[in-house]
This record gives sequence, structure tokens and C-alpha cells, in this order.
Amino acid sequence: MKYASYQIEGSARVGVVEGDTIVPLGDATLTVNAGVDALQAAPRHEARRIPLAQVRLLPASPAPKKIFCVGLNYLDHVQETKRELPRYPVLFPKFASNLIAAGAPIQLPPESRQVDWEGELAVIIGRPGRRIARAEALDHVLGYSIANDITVRDYQYKTHQWLQGKAWDGSTPLGPWIVTPDQVDLTTAGIRTILNDEVVQESTLSKLIFDVPRLVSELSEFTALEPGDVILTGTPGGVGYRRDPQVFLKNGDEIRVEIDGIGRITSTVVDEVAAGERPASVG
Amino acid sequence: MKYASYQIEGSARVGVVEGDTIVPLGDATLTVNAGVDALQAAPRHEARRIPLAQVRLLPASPAPKKIFCVGLNYLDHVQETKRELPRYPVLFPKFASNLIAAGAPIQLPPESRQVDWEGELAVIIGRPGRRIARAEALDHVLGYSIANDITVRDYQYKTHQWLQGKAWDGSTPLGPWIVTPDQVDLTTAGIRTILNDEVVQESTLSKLIFDVPRLVSELSEFTALEPGDVILTGTPGGVGYRRDPQVFLKNGDEIRVEIDGIGRITSTVVDEVAAGERPASVG
Repeated sequence: MKYASYQIEGSARVGVVEGDTIVPLGDATLTVNAGVDALQAAPRHEARRIPLAQVRLLPASPAPKKIFCVGLNYLDHVQETKRELPRYPVLFPKFASNLIAAGAPIQLPPESRQVDWEGELAVIIGRPGRRIARAEALDHVLGYSIANDITVRDYQYKTHQWLQGKAWDGSTPLGPWIVTPDQVDLTTAGIRTILNDEVVQESTLSKLIFDVPRLVSELSEFTALEPGDVILTGTPGGVGYRRDPQVFLKNGDEIRVEIDGIGRITSTVVDEVAAGERPASVG
Repeated sequence: MKYASYQIEGSARVGVVEGDTIVPLGDATLTVNAGVDALQAAPRHEARRIPLAQVRLLPASPAPKKIFCVGLNYLDHVQETKRELPRYPVLFPKFASNLIAAGAPIQLPPESRQVDWEGELAVIIGRPGRRIARAEALDHVLGYSIANDITVRDYQYKTHQWLQGKAWDGSTPLGPWIVTPDQVDLTTAGIRTILNDEVVQESTLSKLIFDVPRLVSELSEFTALEPGDVILTGTPGGVGYRRDPQVFLKNGDEIRVEIDGIGRITSTVVDEVAAGERPASVG
């Protein structure tokens, strides 16, 4: 099963993706924050099946209360950063307003010259829980999606804490949809990031240092996970900042992250000012 | 003006605190997330004025979308941690489920032996904005409150990122209310933390390295601030972890944070298991 969040005629909806169509579920109050049981119980509106191309996708989880990101979770990325192998997940946040949908542009803020990619598996929580045992963790997962954990390196390293390098509004593609765990084999699925047709990151999800059950268990030790919450599980080696010479995203680039069994999310890169989107103080 | 969020007869409300009474504002849909203009325009229900003692307070901002914490923002605390003076705010997150109200117990999780205090000025956002200039920053502030940025030290230092030491559910007192900026002189107000009648932290808000306008400006550079969002501005020297010998919170302690012109927030400390509150996996 694939769940997509989308907008049609000004209303946000959830539906099931089948081929190149989408079957609306429930009513306009239903979101992925309602959780897996509500999604499974929601009526399917077969008569209103529509081509996927006619809807505007939203981020796969459009309004999560919490987004946890994991750093240094693939050995080759740990090695390229010259840091020690972590014994506990390296955790930092993003916020809901940072997310963008499949097809939406990644906006380069005028303040930075170092906007970088990080292709990642995203986990969307489907059932609430605190202190979830590893053996039960997958019961709390609605499914998997694809993220590009866009990182503003010149802000990330302003201090030893990374928040201000990770939490830029309109930066972080999450989508195109959520694929339920029965559809993805995390022991074999490959993950790739492709920048303008060049493969810049390539690994397999089996190489995650802290796997999905471990992450769900560790995070839920200190805070209750809720449906819609998102975990970005970390990126393989090959980020632009660690290349020689360094490579950063620039206006006009196209960047795609693919995960076998889930799909791909493709984003164009635009200068924020050029897009006419630069928000000013609204007070 | 003092705004309090409280619960009465199962309903969450906002009111204005006057002496030891509270005047309800608007209807049950009004929250501090509506912002300063909506709060100022909301009808006062004088006929329903009630003693403050008859309501159960909620966290001063009960459901913020974002909580930013600032580390190392007083010189004496920077010195006790033996870190360098930051040139940009050191930022890390908390989440809404971490907050507790004035009078609610701080729960010691069974996983930790190192739960510590950090008395802090809290800023509550009242008007939305992105890339807010310092000169306009206070127009975006609803008011000030008091926080105890409870920190689980043995988790904070599991990695170089601090999230898992800061984001424990039910840990962080925020209240008792929000005092509008015209009522507090940040250039003279003192801040104190008192553990069982011993003053363990004492400073003045004038010593903030990054002041409130600077913090509002820096944070809003990368993400839009929204009404209800919270900024915890950092703690003075005197935390338990940096004492010799170290001191940590224990079952039965009483801890209070005071800020001149705002008030005080007092919390008892209880073992989470002893309180019968230990949440288990609910899946």
C-alpha cells in the first residue's frame, strides 16, 4: 500500500496510490497524523479515483509534530567526516515548515553558499508509543518515504550544535508517498542520490548502523512517538561538502533520491530570490 | 498584562491574570497560538472571573509548534563548561510534549541518574515573521515566561549533539504565565534558581550574551517564527553537573526559578515510577 498526501481544489487529502491513479480515503479531516488504524478503516472513494498527475502532492507527512534526523548512520559517511563511530544515534531536529513535496523546488537561501544534499530513508510513525521495544518497533511504523536532508553547511558549523544548518524553511523534500513496510525489503533495498544524472551517493539500507527498530526504540525512550512523526535515518557517503573539490547545489540543478521499492523524489534547485519567493518580516 | 493558559472543567482556556484572579478571554478555541492581536481583541468575561487557585494551569504556551533552546548564553555558564565563547547562538530543540505547567511535578526517568536544572527566561512569540530585523524583534514577542530547562546529563553527552538530553517528556516547567514586555525590564531583572531553599543560580538578564532581539532575528533567518513558539534563552552558571561534588535532582526535592517582574515557577521532583506515571509502549 502507498499513502499519498495531496492537495486538490484547495483541500488537503490522503489517498492510496495505485499505478498512476490515486483513490481518495475518508474525508478532508483525515491526515497521516490520524495513524495507521484510522487510515486502514477509512472508506475508499473508488468513484473519485483520479490521475496522480492531476493532484499537487504534499510532503509525505505534511504536518508532523516532531521530525528527528540521525547523523553519521552509514559507515562510509562517518569515515568521510573523520568522526568516531557513534555508539548512540546522533540526533538533531527539523520542523514541519522545513518540508517540501515531491516536485516542489529546493530554494537556495541568499544567506548561504554551501547548500548540500543528503539522500535518506524516512520513517513515518503510524501508532503512538513510549519506550517501544525493538521487537515491537515495526508495529509503530506506518511506512517508509524518501527524504533529501538538505543541509546548509556554512550554518551547520557555526557552532557545535547543528540545528541552524538543518532547519531552513522550504528546504527538505519528503515524498513522494509512504510505502507500507510489507512492500519494502530493507535488507536489500539500494539508495542513490543523483545530481544532474551523476550518481553522487549510492549504498544499501542494510548498511544503516542504527536500524529502524533501534531508532524507534531509542527515540521513544525519552519522548512519545506520535502518528505522523518522521525519522530521517541518515545519509550514506558522498555529500558535496566532503568532496574534493567541494560541490554545492546551485540554481538550475536537478537532484533525485531513489530507494528501491519506494520510488524516487526529484527536485529542481532555485535561488530563493530568483523564484520571487523571498519572505520578508511580516510583522 | 499577564496571560495564563489553564484548564477548567476539562476545557483549555486563556485568561488574563489580575491579582489572585483570572478573567477568561474569548472562547475555548482561543490559545496563545492565535497570537497577540487575537488575544488583545478577544472579549473579557468579567462575570466569569475566578480565583487563580481554582484553575489548573497549563504550560504558559501549551502547544508550541517549535521550541528553541539556547546554550552557553551567560558568561559564567560558558566558563564553568570550559567551552569557548560562542559567536552565534548554540541552538537545540525541545518538543511540546516535554513541557509541564507550574505546580506539576518534574518526573525523574528511571533511565537516568543525572537530571539537572537550568533556570531560564522564556520568550513566547506573538506575531509571525521571517527574517525579522533586530529593531523590530520585540513587536513579534507576546511576552516572557520562566522555564526550567531540565537536562538529562547522562543522555546529553551520549553524542556531540544534545537533543536526547533535552527532550524528555514531562520534564520542563514553563510558566506560570506570560508577562507582556512592557511589564519587565530586561536590563535590570534578576534571575535565580532555588533548590530546597538554597540559591544555586543567580544572575541578571542583562548578562545574556545573545539578547532577545538578537535571538529572534537569528532564529527567524532560517525559519518563520509563529505565535506560540518558545525560545528558552539559556541558563546562568551554577548547574548541578558543574558543581564539585556534582548535584542532581532527587525524589522529594523542590526547585524554583524566579525572574523579577515575571514571577516564580516551583516544581516538586518525583521518581517517575514512584509517581505511578511510567508510560509503557501503548501499541
